[in-house]
Amino acid sequence: MSFRAVLRVSLSRNKSPLSLFRPHVFSRSFSQLPSTPKWPCFGIAFDIDGVILRGRVPIGGSTQALRRLYGDSGGGIPESRRASELSELLGVNILPLQIVQGHSPFKNLLKRFENELIVATGKGEPAVVMSEYGFKKVLSLDEYASYFDNIDPVAQYKTWTIEQVSSHYFNSTELVPRYDVFSESVKAAFVVSDPVDWGRDIQVLCDILRSGGLPGKKNGHQPPLYLAADDLEYQAAFPSERLGLGSFRIALESIFNRVHHSALEYTTFGKPNPFVFKNAEAILKQLQPSCPNSHAVDVGHMSSHAFKTLYMIGDNPSVDIKGAQQAGHPWFSILTRTGVFKGKENPADLVVDTVEEAVEYILRKEGCA
Amino acid sequence: MSFRAVLRVSLSRNKSPLSLFRPHVFSRSFSQLPSTPKWPCFGIAFDIDGVILRGRVPIGGSTQALRRLYGDSGGGIPESRRASELSELLGVNILPLQIVQGHSPFKNLLKRFENELIVATGKGEPAVVMSEYGFKKVLSLDEYASYFDNIDPVAQYKTWTIEQVSSHYFNSTELVPRYDVFSESVKAAFVVSDPVDWGRDIQVLCDILRSGGLPGKKNGHQPPLYLAADDLEYQAAFPSERLGLGSFRIALESIFNRVHHSALEYTTFGKPNPFVFKNAEAILKQLQPSCPNSHAVDVGHMSSHAFKTLYMIGDNPSVDIKGAQQAGHPWFSILTRTGVFKGKENPADLVVDTVEEAVEYILRKEGCA
Repeated sequence: MSFRAVLRVSLSRNKSPLSLFRPHVFSRSFSQLPSTPKWPCFGIAFDIDGVILRGRVPIGGSTQALRRLYGDSGGGIPESRRASELSELLGVNILPLQIVQGHSPFKNLLKRFENELIVATGKGEPAVVMSEYGFKKVLSLDEYASYFDNIDPVAQYKTWTIEQVSSHYFNSTELVPRYDVFSESVKAAFVVSDPVDWGRDIQVLCDILRSGGLPGKKNGHQPPLYLAADDLEYQAAFPSERLGLGSFRIALESIFNRVHHSALEYTTFGKPNPFVFKNAEAILKQLQPSCPNSHAVDVGHMSSHAFKTLYMIGDNPSVDIKGAQQAGHPWFSILTRTGVFKGKENPADLVVDTVEEAVEYILRKEGCA
Repeated sequence: MSFRAVLRVSLSRNKSPLSLFRPHVFSRSFSQLPSTPKWPCFGIAFDIDGVILRGRVPIGGSTQALRRLYGDSGGGIPESRRASELSELLGVNILPLQIVQGHSPFKNLLKRFENELIVATGKGEPAVVMSEYGFKKVLSLDEYASYFDNIDPVAQYKTWTIEQVSSHYFNSTELVPRYDVFSESVKAAFVVSDPVDWGRDIQVLCDILRSGGLPGKKNGHQPPLYLAADDLEYQAAFPSERLGLGSFRIALESIFNRVHHSALEYTTFGKPNPFVFKNAEAILKQLQPSCPNSHAVDVGHMSSHAFKTLYMIGDNPSVDIKGAQQAGHPWFSILTRTGVFKGKENPADLVVDTVEEAVEYILRKEGCA
C-alpha cells in the first residue's frame, strides 16, 4: 500500500525542534480521491536536531524518509521562515500553519500579560515572536538593556552590533525608550530560544528578576520567568553536543541563587516536560481542520479520532525518550544513534541507527510498507 | 609632618584591582634628601572598583586622598596601558613596574607550561598578557575557537567581529592554525579577566576540559583551569553590583558538573584567597629596590623591614574584608560604603563612608596627618 503523509504540525523549539506527522493513507488507486481516505490511527513525532538534521545537513536518510511520508505534495501557500527553511532543507513542503514552535505554550499566557511590559530573549527575533502571539508591550532584552547605561560592564569589549536596534526599535536617532522602563516594572521575562549573549542576558535577567522588574532598584518580588526549552545539550553540526537552553537555565539559576536571598522560580516548557507531548497530541488533532492538504475529509470525525500509537523519534534519551515515556500512552519511543545517544544500552522502546530505519519500522508495523 | 608616598606596587585584577601603597615619609625640610627618610612601618591596600573608581569615575574623594599620598611626584618612565589609565583617572603617576595584575600568580606556572599549548580568555588581550609572562604557545580562546567549525552554535547570530583575528592572529588570509589544535591537546586554560562572550567561553572551555584538551573528542583527563579572580559581584558604574569572575566560574562549574562525569577542578587566585594578601605583602617588599621614586634609600635594610600594619581598604565584605581577616596579621580591614557594602552592621575592623575618610584615619593613626 502506498501512502501519503499529511503534516499536521511541526512542534519545534529553535534548537531541538519536534515535528509531528500524521500519515494520511490512501490506497494507491484512490490517491487523488480524498473523499475515501483511510486514516491510520498513529502519528510520528520527529526530533529534528540529531535525528533529521545535524546543523543544516540532513542525516540518517532523513530526506528519503520524509519524502516517503510526504510524497511529492505541492503547495503554494505563504510559508513562515522556519517552514520555508525546513521545507528547503528536507525537500518537502511544510506550511506555516503546520509549524508550532517550542515557545508556543507562551501563547497561553497572553491573557495574563497581553498589556503588561514583558521582555523576551534568545536568538532570532524573540520580541517579534511574542508580538505575533499578541503581546502588546514586549521588548527584546537587546532593546531593553540598551536603555540602561553601564548595565553590561563588558559591553565596551563587544564589537558585535544588534541589528534590530537600528531597523526595528527606534523611530528616531535618539535612544528614547518606547516604554518608561525606568518606572514601569517588567512583569515577566521569556527566554524564547537559545540566548546569544549569555553574560549580558544572565546579568540583565538577574537585574530584572531580583529587583522586581526595575534594574538597579532594591530587592523586589521576582517576576515570572518562562523558558521555551530545558535540554542540557543537543546534537548540532559540531561532533560533540552543544550546550542547550537547559544549560543556560542552570547558569542563570546557579548565579541568581547566590546573589539573591530566595531561589529562582521559573517554568520551562521544553521536552521532557509531558506538557510538550500532551500539547503536541492536542494540536495535532486541532489543526486537522485547517490542514490545507486534508482536502474534504470528514473533519468532525477526524478531530475526535484517538491515536492508537504516537511515535517519538529522538536522539536524546533524557529529553525525547524520557519525555515520551513520562507522557505515557499512546507514545512509543524510538531512539536513533545519529545524535546525542551513542550508548550500547536500550533506554527506549526501540533503538535504531537512523531516522530512515525508524520510519521503515513504523511503516511495516502499521502495515503501510 | 608632611609626607610623600612611594607607590610600591599596585596589585590589581582587571575588574576589582587592588593597589598597594607604602608611604615614604620625609620631614618637610628634608623632602629632597632621600638619605634621611623616615619609613613608616605600614602599608595601604586599596580595592579600586567601588572604593576609588566607579566605572571610570573617581569616587569618595579618592583623587584627593591619593594625591595626599602621592604628592605631586613627576615621572617620565614608559607606562603600561593600565598604569597609564589609572594615572590619568586618578591624577597621580603610577609606573608600570608598580602595577601587578590579579593574574600575576599565573607567572608562577611558567615553568610548567612555558612550552605547552595553553588557551587564555577574558576581556582585553588575555593571550598578550600570558605571552608577556613568557608563555610560548598561548592562544586566546577567540583564536582557538575560530579554528573549529560550528563549535559555537549561535555564532551566526553574533554580528560582532573579533578585531584581533584580522590584525594579530593570522599571517595570511587563510584560517590556518598557528599550532595543530586538532592533534595537540590544550594543556591548561587560563581565565585572565572577565569573559566577554560567556556562552561561547563556557561551551569551548567545557569542550577543552572534558575532552582532555581536544574539543569534539572523547572524554579525557581534565587539563588544569586557572582563574584570576573569584568575586561573585563587584561595584562598577551601574547602580547595582555587576556579576564578576566568580559568577562566571559558578556558571561554568554548574554546567560542567552536569555534562561531565567528574566535577570541575580549578584554581582561583582572587580575593579573598589569602595568597593574594601574602603575595601583595611579598611583592611590596621585593619591588622596593626597583622603585624609581625610592632614590638612594637603604634597600637592603628596607627589604627586611617588617610591616607593623597593612591596611586593606575595600567595599566588598566577602572578598576584601574577609580576605584581609583570613590573611591575619598585619592586615587591618577598612570597609567603605561607596560600593558593594550598604549595610548597617560592621563586619570589618573599621567602617567609613569613603576612601578619603579611610586615608584620613590611617594618617592620623600613624601620626602623619
